[in-house]
Amino acid sequence: MNPENTRLSWVTSANGHPDFPLQNLPHGIFSPAGETPRGGVAIGDYIFDVGAACRAGLFNDTAQYAAEQAAGSTLNAFFALDATERRALREALLALLDESSPHRERMQALGDSLLCPMAACHLHLPAKVGDYTDFYVGIHHATNVGKLFRPDNPLLPNYKYVPIGYHGRASTIDVSGAPVIRPKGQTLPPGQAEPTFGPSKRLDYELELGIWIGQGNARGEAISIGNARKHIAGLCLLNDWSARDIQAWEYQPLGPFLSKSFATTVSPWVVTAEALEPFRCAQPARPTGDPKPLPYLLDPTDQETGALNVELEVLLRTTAMREHNLPAQRVALSSTLNMYWTLAQLVTHHTVNGCSLQPGDLFGSGTLSGEHPDSYGSLLETTVGGKQPLMLPNGETRTFLEDGDEVILRARCHREGYASIGFGECSGIIQPAH
Amino acid sequence: MNPENTRLSWVTSANGHPDFPLQNLPHGIFSPAGETPRGGVAIGDYIFDVGAACRAGLFNDTAQYAAEQAAGSTLNAFFALDATERRALREALLALLDESSPHRERMQALGDSLLCPMAACHLHLPAKVGDYTDFYVGIHHATNVGKLFRPDNPLLPNYKYVPIGYHGRASTIDVSGAPVIRPKGQTLPPGQAEPTFGPSKRLDYELELGIWIGQGNARGEAISIGNARKHIAGLCLLNDWSARDIQAWEYQPLGPFLSKSFATTVSPWVVTAEALEPFRCAQPARPTGDPKPLPYLLDPTDQETGALNVELEVLLRTTAMREHNLPAQRVALSSTLNMYWTLAQLVTHHTVNGCSLQPGDLFGSGTLSGEHPDSYGSLLETTVGGKQPLMLPNGETRTFLEDGDEVILRARCHREGYASIGFGECSGIIQPAH
Repeated sequence: MNPENTRLSWVTSANGHPDFPLQNLPHGIFSPAGETPRGGVAIGDYIFDVGAACRAGLFNDTAQYAAEQAAGSTLNAFFALDATERRALREALLALLDESSPHRERMQALGDSLLCPMAACHLHLPAKVGDYTDFYVGIHHATNVGKLFRPDNPLLPNYKYVPIGYHGRASTIDVSGAPVIRPKGQTLPPGQAEPTFGPSKRLDYELELGIWIGQGNARGEAISIGNARKHIAGLCLLNDWSARDIQAWEYQPLGPFLSKSFATTVSPWVVTAEALEPFRCAQPARPTGDPKPLPYLLDPTDQETGALNVELEVLLRTTAMREHNLPAQRVALSSTLNMYWTLAQLVTHHTVNGCSLQPGDLFGSGTLSGEHPDSYGSLLETTVGGKQPLMLPNGETRTFLEDGDEVILRARCHREGYASIGFGECSGIIQPAH
Repeated sequence: MNPENTRLSWVTSANGHPDFPLQNLPHGIFSPAGETPRGGVAIGDYIFDVGAACRAGLFNDTAQYAAEQAAGSTLNAFFALDATERRALREALLALLDESSPHRERMQALGDSLLCPMAACHLHLPAKVGDYTDFYVGIHHATNVGKLFRPDNPLLPNYKYVPIGYHGRASTIDVSGAPVIRPKGQTLPPGQAEPTFGPSKRLDYELELGIWIGQGNARGEAISIGNARKHIAGLCLLNDWSARDIQAWEYQPLGPFLSKSFATTVSPWVVTAEALEPFRCAQPARPTGDPKPLPYLLDPTDQETGALNVELEVLLRTTAMREHNLPAQRVALSSTLNMYWTLAQLVTHHTVNGCSLQPGDLFGSGTLSGEHPDSYGSLLETTVGGKQPLMLPNGETRTFLEDGDEVILRARCHREGYASIGFGECSGIIQPAH
């Protein structure tokens, strides 16, 4: 066993922490009450203030440079670092926060100015998002949704060749905790010939992995599949809130627009590519009969180690549950192994036409449903288009989301012999339409 | 006749200038050779350096404040002004550049530091684009394209209710003159069962109006149709380059993606809402039998004065034409009157779900084809999907664009008794695939 995997921290809440042990060290943007936003790293129940550590002279050389990039009011400069620089910062942070760090007493003396209790801090969107792209690579989700329209032929002919994606709205990406206002829009009620206007009646969540792009590429220069992994800085959770009734009426022929652009929520912590290394695995074999990816999407290393094993969870907490002090109820348990394409394949496909990516661009994976109903990542699938209500343990039912409902996404990586790491929460409460 | 309409400028090249007479005064970002980009206003063959004018004390009060916002390296701060502030700057510029300006000699003494010859300047993208949205409101284009797939029923049922739009890629928006590299991608060759990969063989232009968003709106607060006009700062030309073969294979079910995201070109000058006032007109009546817009999209003032009469032109210049010193050939003449929805309706629809717009967001109108083949705004339409080659006057033919082809968009507003104003050019030359 690599000693790194059992290292403990002098920040004792980190040891055994479900999300943020020493082995995770995700980056984010935080502000203690009344102070300005700045870069931090989650460790147990605390946030390590990267800028304060820089000023205290706790870093050297490359790590110092990387820490300066990670200390600002957005992580865009941190995302622009190369993997070597990011790794130097990670190694320095591991050493500083290790229980045997020689600088431990000096850091403890800095108190709250170095380690802020997370519960007392406000968390912000990690970066200024340049462009946001939402993919559709959860094959069970694509199949389930396709079945609602085409029971005998759910997947379109391009699905197994093209990592399907579309451009999303960057201005309405929010961090976990921001309210989600029920959108209004045009819908075509069943059986009617003319549309009507009003609040969406079929508001849904979508369980997705978010991918933060690191270094970008120049216009016209595609990122080869062998190099693509280096361009991913880290991951988060992403809820692609969707108004199904608006979507059904508007989406032909150019795709989803207002049915998605009212809100997208991401978790505040960027779990770095380095922290995720132990949880890499082989891309699951394609079912017999599926085509081989075209050569530009195929790389042996990517096939062998380009997938990720991240457990994903959706929880729902209704107003009644809050009023009765009941905890949120899990409504789905899924995994990133349900992706038909690797993250590297998404990066390469996105740039193969010469499109430029930039540090701080965000990808959504698409909804990551599993094969069975208890793993479906949207209510559209769980309730079969609203026809089979979801039964909640307290006796409530849901076809789609109601005002006051809170949706919480969580993610965790487990591996025998390694410390588990988590993503923290990605949550939002539905507010009534304005 | 309003005296403003016949005013002349002491910048004599402005008088009778096809694009930039005194009555236009469009804003842009320019740099003289070796200098940093900054805000300017086109007047005849010159660019008026707004920052230099500020420093020379040529503005007062509101105009001075507005000029400072228009003097930076992008126009985002200018776009964030309200219409009153923009108008104060326009009035000040009109007075300064009028042939009877009392400051004329002082300005002339400043020479090139105030008025730079446009030919000696580099022009830049006017603003940092936050989000780019492409609409589809050219009804003849939608009908022509629809006919290629559904001859008997070209328009989908939502078309006359929903101003159809989708999110585009912001990172690949370029200013006129930037090269356009032929994209590579997956395509399904006719008659084949499996896709192939390579340079697009069906590269096309799309003639569109570009709309620069001024003041934005808060999340959750829709912009009412009565207020929407105020949120448009100005207009430009936009070429939504499209790889038809990539588009046909990738676009189901989520819309165009890599077939568009390799490049979008805009003209460098932002023709302000104020300069366009004389060219406003009533929205053309909907054909008998078409539904009335839903109430949220309907406003009497918008119906009476919300359309624009702008003549639009596409020109093509091939390598052979350049080699033989032949001018670019017009391949289409169209008009913004081919929009099924007003600009205000686009703004209102985009925000009706609570989506926030920001200063510097860009909309494309969608391809603005007319009813007849000589007014079609894309080769897809002109050549009926590549089946009827376009004959050029020098004996060449085109189905789609070839390497070396230059596409030039132009626009002009005419009205009896008013000085004509133009948009300048939006051009790009196709470069071979990398």
